[in-house]
Amino acid sequence: MTTRRTLAVGLIGYGFMGKAHSNAWRQAPHFFALPADVRMKVICGRNSAATAEAARQYGWENVASDWREVVADPEIDVVDIATPNHTHSEIALAAAAARKAILCEKPLALDAAECEQMLAAVRKSRVVHMVCHNYRRIPAISLAKRMIDRGDLGNRIYHYRARYAQDWIVDPASPSVWRLQSKSAGSGAHGDINSHIVDLARYLVGEFNDVSAIMNTFVSKRPVISGSPKKRKVTVDDAVCMMGKFRNGAIANLEATRFAHGRKNSMTIEINGSAGSIAFNLEEMNKLHLYDVRQQEDQRGFREILVTEPVHPFVKNWWPPGHIVGYEHTFVHTVADFVGAIVSGKSVQPTFEDGLKNQRVLDAARESAETGKWIKVSG
Amino acid sequence: MTTRRTLAVGLIGYGFMGKAHSNAWRQAPHFFALPADVRMKVICGRNSAATAEAARQYGWENVASDWREVVADPEIDVVDIATPNHTHSEIALAAAAARKAILCEKPLALDAAECEQMLAAVRKSRVVHMVCHNYRRIPAISLAKRMIDRGDLGNRIYHYRARYAQDWIVDPASPSVWRLQSKSAGSGAHGDINSHIVDLARYLVGEFNDVSAIMNTFVSKRPVISGSPKKRKVTVDDAVCMMGKFRNGAIANLEATRFAHGRKNSMTIEINGSAGSIAFNLEEMNKLHLYDVRQQEDQRGFREILVTEPVHPFVKNWWPPGHIVGYEHTFVHTVADFVGAIVSGKSVQPTFEDGLKNQRVLDAARESAETGKWIKVSG
Amino acid sequence: MTTRRTLAVGLIGYGFMGKAHSNAWRQAPHFFALPADVRMKVICGRNSAATAEAARQYGWENVASDWREVVADPEIDVVDIATPNHTHSEIALAAAAARKAILCEKPLALDAAECEQMLAAVRKSRVVHMVCHNYRRIPAISLAKRMIDRGDLGNRIYHYRARYAQDWIVDPASPSVWRLQSKSAGSGAHGDINSHIVDLARYLVGEFNDVSAIMNTFVSKRPVISGSPKKRKVTVDDAVCMMGKFRNGAIANLEATRFAHGRKNSMTIEINGSAGSIAFNLEEMNKLHLYDVRQQEDQRGFREILVTEPVHPFVKNWWPPGHIVGYEHTFVHTVADFVGAIVSGKSVQPTFEDGLKNQRVLDAARESAETGKWIKVSG
Amino acid sequence: MTTRRTLAVGLIGYGFMGKAHSNAWRQAPHFFALPADVRMKVICGRNSAATAEAARQYGWENVASDWREVVADPEIDVVDIATPNHTHSEIALAAAAARKAILCEKPLALDAAECEQMLAAVRKSRVVHMVCHNYRRIPAISLAKRMIDRGDLGNRIYHYRARYAQDWIVDPASPSVWRLQSKSAGSGAHGDINSHIVDLARYLVGEFNDVSAIMNTFVSKRPVISGSPKKRKVTVDDAVCMMGKFRNGAIANLEATRFAHGRKNSMTIEINGSAGSIAFNLEEMNKLHLYDVRQQEDQRGFREILVTEPVHPFVKNWWPPGHIVGYEHTFVHTVADFVGAIVSGKSVQPTFEDGLKNQRVLDAARESAETGKWIKVSG
Repeated sequence: MTTRRTLAVGLIGYGFMGKAHSNAWRQAPHFFALPADVRMKVICGRNSAATAEAARQYGWENVASDWREVVADPEIDVVDIATPNHTHSEIALAAAAARKAILCEKPLALDAAECEQMLAAVRKSRVVHMVCHNYRRIPAISLAKRMIDRGDLGNRIYHYRARYAQDWIVDPASPSVWRLQSKSAGSGAHGDINSHIVDLARYLVGEFNDVSAIMNTFVSKRPVISGSPKKRKVTVDDAVCMMGKFRNGAIANLEATRFAHGRKNSMTIEINGSAGSIAFNLEEMNKLHLYDVRQQEDQRGFREILVTEPVHPFVKNWWPPGHIVGYEHTFVHTVADFVGAIVSGKSVQPTFEDGLKNQRVLDAARESAETGKWIKVSG
Repeated sequence: MTTRRTLAVGLIGYGFMGKAHSNAWRQAPHFFALPADVRMKVICGRNSAATAEAARQYGWENVASDWREVVADPEIDVVDIATPNHTHSEIALAAAAARKAILCEKPLALDAAECEQMLAAVRKSRVVHMVCHNYRRIPAISLAKRMIDRGDLGNRIYHYRARYAQDWIVDPASPSVWRLQSKSAGSGAHGDINSHIVDLARYLVGEFNDVSAIMNTFVSKRPVISGSPKKRKVTVDDAVCMMGKFRNGAIANLEATRFAHGRKNSMTIEINGSAGSIAFNLEEMNKLHLYDVRQQEDQRGFREILVTEPVHPFVKNWWPPGHIVGYEHTFVHTVADFVGAIVSGKSVQPTFEDGLKNQRVLDAARESAETGKWIKVSG
Repeated sequence: MTTRRTLAVGLIGYGFMGKAHSNAWRQAPHFFALPADVRMKVICGRNSAATAEAARQYGWENVASDWREVVADPEIDVVDIATPNHTHSEIALAAAAARKAILCEKPLALDAAECEQMLAAVRKSRVVHMVCHNYRRIPAISLAKRMIDRGDLGNRIYHYRARYAQDWIVDPASPSVWRLQSKSAGSGAHGDINSHIVDLARYLVGEFNDVSAIMNTFVSKRPVISGSPKKRKVTVDDAVCMMGKFRNGAIANLEATRFAHGRKNSMTIEINGSAGSIAFNLEEMNKLHLYDVRQQEDQRGFREILVTEPVHPFVKNWWPPGHIVGYEHTFVHTVADFVGAIVSGKSVQPTFEDGLKNQRVLDAARESAETGKWIKVSG
Repeated sequence: MTTRRTLAVGLIGYGFMGKAHSNAWRQAPHFFALPADVRMKVICGRNSAATAEAARQYGWENVASDWREVVADPEIDVVDIATPNHTHSEIALAAAAARKAILCEKPLALDAAECEQMLAAVRKSRVVHMVCHNYRRIPAISLAKRMIDRGDLGNRIYHYRARYAQDWIVDPASPSVWRLQSKSAGSGAHGDINSHIVDLARYLVGEFNDVSAIMNTFVSKRPVISGSPKKRKVTVDDAVCMMGKFRNGAIANLEATRFAHGRKNSMTIEINGSAGSIAFNLEEMNKLHLYDVRQQEDQRGFREILVTEPVHPFVKNWWPPGHIVGYEHTFVHTVADFVGAIVSGKSVQPTFEDGLKNQRVLDAARESAETGKWIKVSG
């Protein structure tokens, strides 16, 4: 008889993502039959008071102010990285060296070079590694993947079209926070939200061959803090448009922007294949739209599938049909699968290799935006 | 070889419905292969100047100021009645006596007694008769009928639910026009718009057994004309709610109102059967929504059928797929089928018998509203 | 300085509602700044193994098999009743006698007489009491209430129209579970889901004067258990239609059914007032639709408000704009407000008085369905 | 007193566009108070039998088999060109020389060089010229233009995003008609439908600075005629993606495809400005969606404006609020404005200059697709 393991988790970061990851670790055991117990051992942040408050509110046993402590702690099994993008690499390398399973927020790092190092490190240490592209585990997206894999859209895909639109910085008086500084964020809409639709493109359609992109900064200077007359330069993109060609012949049209008034967290995706199409909108994330040309001729139309049936991915663990789930549930699904992978020792998508491949696409897009040329995706 | 006939039409009425009927007579020959030619011979109205202007604008050869002239004209083959409701009966009786084919606006008359007389008259004269319930010939509604008839919703219907909502008199300053006087209109929302959803209930589901209703007048006095301080009592209903039981066991829930802000011409219908459901909204009249429980379990959902394919009713005569039609087209379809019936001598639904049966339902509902009791529909 | 209290909770029931309530007690402290700590002390159910499993999965310290133990436990501060409807009354009376704060699932009881006893008991004991009409605390519904209270719809309401539609028993092979037996459930769609839209009618519009209703059972016999040839009579309604008049002159049109294929948990509400309208659909619960006639004339239209902004009720405690919440969150909001009321000693809506008033409407509707007459709502 | 003129029209072409233009000439006088009468004198086509049938069906007095006859006819005032794209230029040059007012289907010609000649010719002859970009006169699009002009979206536009998607040739068995041959069509989706969203971009946002595009042909060989084993090469694009920068700093993202299953005639547009956004979908062409950030904070959301009010462009000539219009009405509006321009002698947008500017954008996109480079739009 095998002893049931308890996985001790250390979470680095206590901001928006820290809150979402904490909830996932806390909820997963109550809704999924995990093959191990979860111990929320420590949360780590540089601001002691804020970290202590987060520990209390989110349910962590201890606090730490230096991530190195967490990584060095022999009791810790899992390091969960939910910090600003420029710190991912260093923490992950150390965690890999310390043989911890690693869950890392997206984008995996600031560029492909960093990602390659991280992938090499986790491979060398043979630890389980996962990038937190939580949208892969929206039930409707998982269902889309299932449909494409079983041929519901036919044997060819022609179009992948996605837009991720928000509006939180349309107002020029909105301050220049860390997400608007290339030093800490790497890029703007590109790494933050275009990365999601690039990841889903690869997940649902396949690998990119080459890309062309433009990146725009509509408001170039912003107050240092809200209300301040002192301004700081914005050093990331407000919006990015990208065209791409997949290796399988499909073409991609992507756009990510923080300048679309009225679009709050609107990630819309449409995929057209030889026998049908699917469409999705994150603001209505419990629905998937499917068009199937093989239906009777006078009955064809996009159907709106409410993805809340027991037969749909992840759903039977939650509520009865028609009772919708929300944003945070995608992290719970991610953590549940991650725990399963740690115990089984099997790989779980999206791996750091996915993170690297995504980054290569993002890097090619950036190079294209700088040179005005089509850029072949490396690797 | 048969000689191709020319049907000379006399239209009584030049208001909103006169405009819609004129357009139908003018357009039908250009889009449908009618078995006869149409001659728009005369339009009739009491106001000479306005009628002359209507004749010019809508394309009628002549004007008349007394409908008796039109009915008496031996050249006239068709009398099209588009006048206020209280005049339908007298005109139709005379037209039947004169052996004219008759197209009559809905509601057929003010009450069932009048309708019975009219039906008796057209039967006696053996003329073709039709009530202009134009919504039966919305392509999406005709498609709904086809689906129900071929069993797409299963072998039982459980629910018919419809609401016809407008907002043109929510403002208490809106004047007390003829449609708000029982003498000229018979009733308010009840005869004007509830009659539509009662007709579609009978068309799509079946005959009513008994009904219960309430009728409400929210604003009881209104200006005689716009801006006038002088007020007149409103003597019709602003809104009606009605429950009903069909003979086949289904139940009905109907509502018609002129007091629903933001609903301009919103007739929504949902029918639930043992194997599926359909839903429709007049403000999006080129669409029909269908749910089919016999689909694969993880793919079920309401599909939005854009009813613009050649395989859909009436559509191939218009434009290519995706190119929508509008309100007026329903009258063109009605006229096209009416002309076909005149030439073939066959009956064409909805007949005056339908008009009578609709009126019996409306009368029962009114009696229910007055007595507070369930009323059995006669006939 | 006041000592911070810890409230020990005993939950009676471990089914669907038990799961939802457990989650609420567990999550509320992590997302809301509660004025007391919560101790999930005991969960109670008659099936020991199942209850033990529920305790483990949902995070309760102890299990009990007799609710009397829980009520008698002096450490328990709160009794949360999530059992079948026919047991609510007895448990609540005992809990009131033991001076526990009481949260009770809806419908409060089987009839108004039971509700009156329960209300008298909680008043006598002066304990905090609340009915778990969780839909009042959907952010969009709370926002609707705010809008109506501040006059966004004008000074008169004309129409309240609601439908609660599901489809889980359309299939005649679906077995005759406790919810389909009047002994345990009291009624079918009526008490289960019509009760929700009756409660929201009273919350958003006002008190009913009189009602008229029909109740239908479309499938009268069903297998005792799934697949069994042995059948049992269905003794509750499959669907109910109800018309009503409010004391303030508005009229109501309600419908609840379990026979609407494709509608999974579809509670749709529309309210029309003298200056605007609102519309809501539970399957898209993060949205509220508002029509405001006071807008510029060429810009009027129903706006789709994504109720995920910090300024919206309950939202700032969750996620950033555009990140939606789900079904379960409504229970978290309910528990959070209930804890606040316990500590402050103030009343919190909906109280047992609301439960009683709701029941009087439901009872009047049932009497109407039996007699075919309009019934005045008592009280 | 001025004598009322009668304009004699000669229509070249009797296909899909011939049908739509015929209807427009026939209907415009009945719905709009035109400043001249319209005489539908002659329709011209090479197939005599088909042209004669079209004349009869669409209401033309005479037929011609050579467009030169029509242009030479001194009675003809207006030449309406509705032929395949490669013939536009020659006909228009002759019509200009003959001093006829010219309405020309889009795209104006096969390339900018042709367009320049045509523009020079109409300028020299001082005839009224108009390109039939009928979508500018969809009421909702005209309303969008009004809103942008009066500042409803703010003083800056950030994004123009449009997709025109159809699915009529997804099936590889669909034959290689003239629209799939570069000789007759010039290009595929690019000139046929991308031209529409390029025109609307310029109409609603402004002039393009430079563009980058890809053009794809997914199915390279098709049957010569339906069912034939003999195949012909497809020499036009099936789909085009295009990014662009406007001179005013906005960025554009366009896509046109005939390979999007389920999208029948789906032209979707979204424009994001500094104070709001608008969105439109041709398949629901009676609606315009508007987001206005200047609304009260808890009431913001995209509103769905049903563009059927008298205050909306073109609407008061048709039907009451809520009664929708269809595809063909856009041509009626175009013809009505064109007649007005002929009589007044004033210019009417979109002129041949617009046709030329559109073509320069399309040419630049094509050059970009061939070279892989960003191309500056000339002129």
